[in-house]
Amino acid sequence: MPIRLARNAYGKNAVNLSKIIRHKDYHEFRQISVNISLEGDFETVHTLGDNSKVLPTDTQKNTVYALAKEYFGGSIEEFGIHLAEHFFSNNSQLSQCIVEIAEHLWNRIQIKGQYHPHAYISGGSEKHITAIIKTHEKTAVTSGVKDLLILKTSDSRFENYIKDQYTTLNETSDRVFATNCEVSWLYQIKPKDFTDIFNEIRTALISALANDKSLSVQHTLYSMGEEVLNKFSAIKEIRLKMPNKHHIPFNLLQFGMENNNEIFIATDEPYGYISGTVTRE
Amino acid sequence: MPIRLARNAYGKNAVNLSKIIRHKDYHEFRQISVNISLEGDFETVHTLGDNSKVLPTDTQKNTVYALAKEYFGGSIEEFGIHLAEHFFSNNSQLSQCIVEIAEHLWNRIQIKGQYHPHAYISGGSEKHITAIIKTHEKTAVTSGVKDLLILKTSDSRFENYIKDQYTTLNETSDRVFATNCEVSWLYQIKPKDFTDIFNEIRTALISALANDKSLSVQHTLYSMGEEVLNKFSAIKEIRLKMPNKHHIPFNLLQFGMENNNEIFIATDEPYGYISGTVTRE
Amino acid sequence: MPIRLARNAYGKNAVNLSKIIRHKDYHEFRQISVNISLEGDFETVHTLGDNSKVLPTDTQKNTVYALAKEYFGGSIEEFGIHLAEHFFSNNSQLSQCIVEIAEHLWNRIQIKGQYHPHAYISGGSEKHITAIIKTHEKTAVTSGVKDLLILKTSDSRFENYIKDQYTTLNETSDRVFATNCEVSWLYQIKPKDFTDIFNEIRTALISALANDKSLSVQHTLYSMGEEVLNKFSAIKEIRLKMPNKHHIPFNLLQFGMENNNEIFIATDEPYGYISGTVTRE
Amino acid sequence: MPIRLARNAYGKNAVNLSKIIRHKDYHEFRQISVNISLEGDFETVHTLGDNSKVLPTDTQKNTVYALAKEYFGGSIEEFGIHLAEHFFSNNSQLSQCIVEIAEHLWNRIQIKGQYHPHAYISGGSEKHITAIIKTHEKTAVTSGVKDLLILKTSDSRFENYIKDQYTTLNETSDRVFATNCEVSWLYQIKPKDFTDIFNEIRTALISALANDKSLSVQHTLYSMGEEVLNKFSAIKEIRLKMPNKHHIPFNLLQFGMENNNEIFIATDEPYGYISGTVTRE
Repeated sequence: MPIRLARNAYGKNAVNLSKIIRHKDYHEFRQISVNISLEGDFETVHTLGDNSKVLPTDTQKNTVYALAKEYFGGSIEEFGIHLAEHFFSNNSQLSQCIVEIAEHLWNRIQIKGQYHPHAYISGGSEKHITAIIKTHEKTAVTSGVKDLLILKTSDSRFENYIKDQYTTLNETSDRVFATNCEVSWLYQIKPKDFTDIFNEIRTALISALANDKSLSVQHTLYSMGEEVLNKFSAIKEIRLKMPNKHHIPFNLLQFGMENNNEIFIATDEPYGYISGTVTRE
Repeated sequence: MPIRLARNAYGKNAVNLSKIIRHKDYHEFRQISVNISLEGDFETVHTLGDNSKVLPTDTQKNTVYALAKEYFGGSIEEFGIHLAEHFFSNNSQLSQCIVEIAEHLWNRIQIKGQYHPHAYISGGSEKHITAIIKTHEKTAVTSGVKDLLILKTSDSRFENYIKDQYTTLNETSDRVFATNCEVSWLYQIKPKDFTDIFNEIRTALISALANDKSLSVQHTLYSMGEEVLNKFSAIKEIRLKMPNKHHIPFNLLQFGMENNNEIFIATDEPYGYISGTVTRE
Repeated sequence: MPIRLARNAYGKNAVNLSKIIRHKDYHEFRQISVNISLEGDFETVHTLGDNSKVLPTDTQKNTVYALAKEYFGGSIEEFGIHLAEHFFSNNSQLSQCIVEIAEHLWNRIQIKGQYHPHAYISGGSEKHITAIIKTHEKTAVTSGVKDLLILKTSDSRFENYIKDQYTTLNETSDRVFATNCEVSWLYQIKPKDFTDIFNEIRTALISALANDKSLSVQHTLYSMGEEVLNKFSAIKEIRLKMPNKHHIPFNLLQFGMENNNEIFIATDEPYGYISGTVTRE
Repeated sequence: MPIRLARNAYGKNAVNLSKIIRHKDYHEFRQISVNISLEGDFETVHTLGDNSKVLPTDTQKNTVYALAKEYFGGSIEEFGIHLAEHFFSNNSQLSQCIVEIAEHLWNRIQIKGQYHPHAYISGGSEKHITAIIKTHEKTAVTSGVKDLLILKTSDSRFENYIKDQYTTLNETSDRVFATNCEVSWLYQIKPKDFTDIFNEIRTALISALANDKSLSVQHTLYSMGEEVLNKFSAIKEIRLKMPNKHHIPFNLLQFGMENNNEIFIATDEPYGYISGTVTRE
């Protein structure tokens, strides 16, 4: 059988951009990281070294900075859509353009209950993310959160699972549930305001996790996804990745002490990894 | 439309295991990291919290350590296949089991030209990887390398690309080509010895990159893939991910000095990201 | 001259411990990472392999978990002092014991304005830190913050510096000031409540940075240190490390656009690194 | 007591520079990361915002790139000394200048036993480091290695240590010894060739670790230091940092199997941390 190029893509990753938006009374500070990925009629680039259809990744980077001046002022979703449309409409060789944006969150500092006009503190490792996948047929938009670290110290059980010759885990009706969520949802209709619906869905996810009577990570994951689909008709599908950041009770009995579910070893590896998609389709 | 669970998976990641294999004259030291991922009849786990079909990730971890005693002595591919078969044949609820193994390389220390019997130095960040995807129909095996850092200081051009209003990059007939390769290939027939063929393919990839007269990263990527498919009939398909680790000439002209392609700023971000699959299908 | 052992130390690092403190109406979740470092009469350990005076680092780790049950309920400073005293009074071979604790911050989740009783969200990368250095003569206690990311978009100038043949930086009366502070302060008298004074000093540092009319990072660093020493008589000395996380204006002129101090490249490396100690001595 | 500025320093960190040195038959590729740190008459910078004595960190960075063209061709020690002398002799306000350089290692690729003229593979995470501390009185030079991962599977015991109520560790006459060494040594006389002596000392350190009959990490650390001071009269003092990367035997007995010191859990945290200085003074 002949050898041929199959799926391929190229683009610029980690275009780190900050913007100051100068409002009358205060500055808005935004920090994003942008990835661009292009697919299309690029076979001869690979096979012949013909670069005549290649928009260099350096130019992609420049374009992000240039377009940010006029077009990045609102949601990252809108800016991402603008970028995808720009690349797509100016490059007829493309069959697909993916734009991914992650926004690092900064909060205005409060001093004695007043917001400072131009000083900010990091919002932590949590990021607001979006991905725009543009083809000739359609523009799919997802939004989500990444590195959302949540934890609960009660209402989490894990029981009645399979036991075999390698089982050592004890069943528990009360364990620590800790996870570093990555969640993204696909819009089936364009929302009125991407930022508003993002904030509402984020709140719904956190509430669902906090209030769930968890029987497993899977069980909670599904509750979270179901909650979002039930409440937000604009959402077609939601994907959740929930690593299980284990907190293992430390054995104090060996020192003649009781550990009433109070002292834990926090571990990074190994970790459980649970992922699932909840959909209307 | 009703809400339902779509694709989902769970398992244990980052099961870090070391093994000493005690040969007559020397010790062999192996260090691997294993990921397990299971798919199957898990809908009620999510929707009802019914754990009766859940093999806990803790048990998966224990199983890796237990089976490593008898079954991990040769290639990571063979051990991975054994693990996948174990989980698959003991858990009828599974439709798919993925086992991924990354091996950290250790080299025996040489002292005055002699190999030390039990002392090792790290082989660096490069890892030998494998993935086994087992379903009822078949067992797909891939092997590969990850974090293979290669660089060449000549035989790399980038010219004749699209110019638009955001272009600032200069064409160059002589640039630094540096990449952190991740490559994996799919076997269409089981090789006689996974370790032998791995070593041969790794050598072929490195030689292809070193000797290529590169017109772009894409061009080199394809050459590397083509070389492997041409030389190794056991391989059906090869996937390459080659970030472009830019080395930007430092502007010495501003100090009245010439930079004859000798002094560079090594940057991490942003970076070009090129991926492609070369196939026989 | 004879060869001899000079300064040496050993201990266990990164003892990761979580504790749930079950109050009547809610759970308090604490997560810390502890380092222990011992110095003393350890010469023969090194020179002869005599372990008779070695308290194993594994035992140090166990001790941290065991003592956390009874003694970790309030400030990390008090727990650190307790640990240092425990090791010091039970090991007469010690001349010095250093205990370092970093606390990862978790905030109770608010749902519709109400604190959830047992669900938490990460407080980000910022950590509350302490170090206790215990010797026969005294116990020195420092507290501080680490990975405190702050940024201001105005009130930061950098002008009138030395120019030489390698200068390319332009003077600016309005730049982004961004830093990832690590600050620690030494108590000269024991405060009534370590947690209260920590919170007050943290607030003072953030306010000082936010309100400063900065002429340089050094200038702001000193203002912050001076503010703390002026306001808090319990503090003898304060040390600040303030990397300068550069935000470089992107050159939009090359595309015929103006950059009115609005679009920046956020860079990680290289970075300015400024450190200084402000003291009463 | 009045408030005043105590010790302070500033400079540029992580100046990442690559250089191609074009020899007749092959290219030499060098990659370094440089830190500059200046101390001196900088009190009014902090207290008054007077920048008239400040050489900006941006200019420091430019200087590194500019001087690399002519002066970086041999050892990093010689280049570091040149940089330190440049900054010191051109800035009379300095009392001390520290230049630190870490070199990332690249090896020329061998194809069929022949070195390729311009293709390289990463030498791993190990780095060759140097620090130059220049004052009016003297120039102290240290060289060393960082991130040198070594491991031995035999000749390592740990016995006869203190037991107390928190001891759970078992004595062992045969354990895995793994460490990520950072070692640096101070020259008392300038060696003929910094690169030659570096290579010899590195070899001596690795041999000493490999061949030691270790009774503890401390015992091996001292052997390594003693070996270097015994063999190399140019060295005045050597400092070793040797984290203990624990490999914990996995409990197979719980599955009715024996673990004859063959299957281990490789852990990152917590870790033992042992440091010591061996000196002639």
